Amino acid sequence: MHADQLLPFIANTFDQMPFNRLLGLKVTRFDEQQAEVRFDWAGQLVGNPVQQILHGGVIASVLDVVGGLMAVSSALSRFGDIADAELAEKLGKMSTIDIRTDYLRPGRGQQFIATAQVIRTGNKVCVCRMELHNEQGIHIALGTGTYLVG
Amino acid sequence: MHADQLLPFIANTFDQMPFNRLLGLKVTRFDEQQAEVRFDWAGQLVGNPVQQILHGGVIASVLDVVGGLMAVSSALSRFGDIADAELAEKLGKMSTIDIRTDYLRPGRGQQFIATAQVIRTGNKVCVCRMELHNEQGIHIALGTGTYLVG
Amino acid sequence: MHADQLLPFIANTFDQMPFNRLLGLKVTRFDEQQAEVRFDWAGQLVGNPVQQILHGGVIASVLDVVGGLMAVSSALSRFGDIADAELAEKLGKMSTIDIRTDYLRPGRGQQFIATAQVIRTGNKVCVCRMELHNEQGIHIALGTGTYLVG
Amino acid sequence: MHADQLLPFIANTFDQMPFNRLLGLKVTRFDEQQAEVRFDWAGQLVGNPVQQILHGGVIASVLDVVGGLMAVSSALSRFGDIADAELAEKLGKMSTIDIRTDYLRPGRGQQFIATAQVIRTGNKVCVCRMELHNEQGIHIALGTGTYLVG
Repeated sequence: MHADQLLPFIANTFDQMPFNRLLGLKVTRFDEQQAEVRFDWAGQLVGNPVQQILHGGVIASVLDVVGGLMAVSSALSRFGDIADAELAEKLGKMSTIDIRTDYLRPGRGQQFIATAQVIRTGNKVCVCRMELHNEQGIHIALGTGTYLVG
Repeated sequence: MHADQLLPFIANTFDQMPFNRLLGLKVTRFDEQQAEVRFDWAGQLVGNPVQQILHGGVIASVLDVVGGLMAVSSALSRFGDIADAELAEKLGKMSTIDIRTDYLRPGRGQQFIATAQVIRTGNKVCVCRMELHNEQGIHIALGTGTYLVG
Repeated sequence: MHADQLLPFIANTFDQMPFNRLLGLKVTRFDEQQAEVRFDWAGQLVGNPVQQILHGGVIASVLDVVGGLMAVSSALSRFGDIADAELAEKLGKMSTIDIRTDYLRPGRGQQFIATAQVIRTGNKVCVCRMELHNEQGIHIALGTGTYLVG
Repeated sequence: MHADQLLPFIANTFDQMPFNRLLGLKVTRFDEQQAEVRFDWAGQLVGNPVQQILHGGVIASVLDVVGGLMAVSSALSRFGDIADAELAEKLGKMSTIDIRTDYLRPGRGQQFIATAQVIRTGNKVCVCRMELHNEQGIHIALGTGTYLVG
């Protein structure tokens, strides 16, 4: 695969993951500087039905997804063209080691935007910071994730 | 509500949460010592379709649910009978402050069992440890959650 | 105590804590927006003597100190003048609930600067983000702390 | 170095680290199953002088030390005899990636005992759980640490 096809390929892979589809996640920005994932409010994503707020697990999930996307981008950016088999093998070895989610405000809104940036990168481990905001810019949650990338 | 109706009522409230239903979670044990939540493998819970393993967000979600259940039990166990309005008010104020999830092994299995125990309790904050195993006893993930309970 | 004496009093209390003195910590900035703590390199703060880098525990300690300082400031800023006995009682109840430290780069340098900012505030719990840099602006570590403040 | 000299050598290396000496830490048990580190109460380890309790940074430090010790043991146990230069190189690459500390009860006591166990092991990353008790068995703190080991 040519280097310039990598990011679109990975974004598509994330969009197609069954649980990401269940949550309605869409990769809306993805380059070597930042990853962004969006999803719309949906009744099935609710935790507390009285308060009509997102379930904490939805928030943790999307933070993990956007952080993982960023970690993959960071790890792959040092390769140029890469054989498909090698790419598949590398992607198969990447995984979340641990993640911390801080819930800041109730998950209310019509659309939610998760972003990630790399704060430590290496050939084995990558650490990312993630944030979740709603469409009005309200900061809902924060994440810190450690990813195995090599 | 009589004290002995509290735990069944809360378990039912958790079972009815929309996102818990989407995940297929069932509260299978819930007393003042331990909370247990189970769910079955389902194709829509998959992260990586090649490897056929649970999405990390599913794991984080169920650990948060079982920890929250335990935290609620811990917080309510010091009340005896409680007026319904007061119970609703107290439950509405309870929330996850932060959670750490450690992914230990790939999420493979037919059924998954999440358990929680209280490690710090107080009238404002409760800390729980959570674990996820599959039906063969394989230890898949570990969580540590801090909950606001008063 | 008058409201404008509070922050200097608290900064002095932190400077006088025995373990903070052992580490050589100095509160160098402290207002309602930001807290900053500095310390100089010292041989006794070393972990690995071959590499001559700060011990991870030193880094975790100073991140906790600067985050705690910020949490105290955040909690007290909503009081105006406060009776000394009430202040002492409130301070006595404040404590760290949990903290995550991410080690980004080896702790090398001549002086180290820790800063904190509040990311969630309330009348019971405060969450802060902390950073440690050296005198050249190298980013060494990152922290996320949850504090009980009321 | 012969395989049976490894653990004593590593324990001694930890005992000699300058900051570990400042804290008064002693490795009191160290095999492939468990690591244990002890230290005595000392006035200079105090955070809050009114309450006479351990500084949170002391607790975070000792949890990191005992977890790191366990991670090193886990990583080295798969080698048999190892050349000194290779051992030094491997040890130099091992480091803490991130650690979470949960403070459960005030750090009061005459002696403190920190223990660790491995919960995830691999050729790159090791995850440990750590606990701190006092000499009366009171559980003071809990840690979860992720270590780079290869």
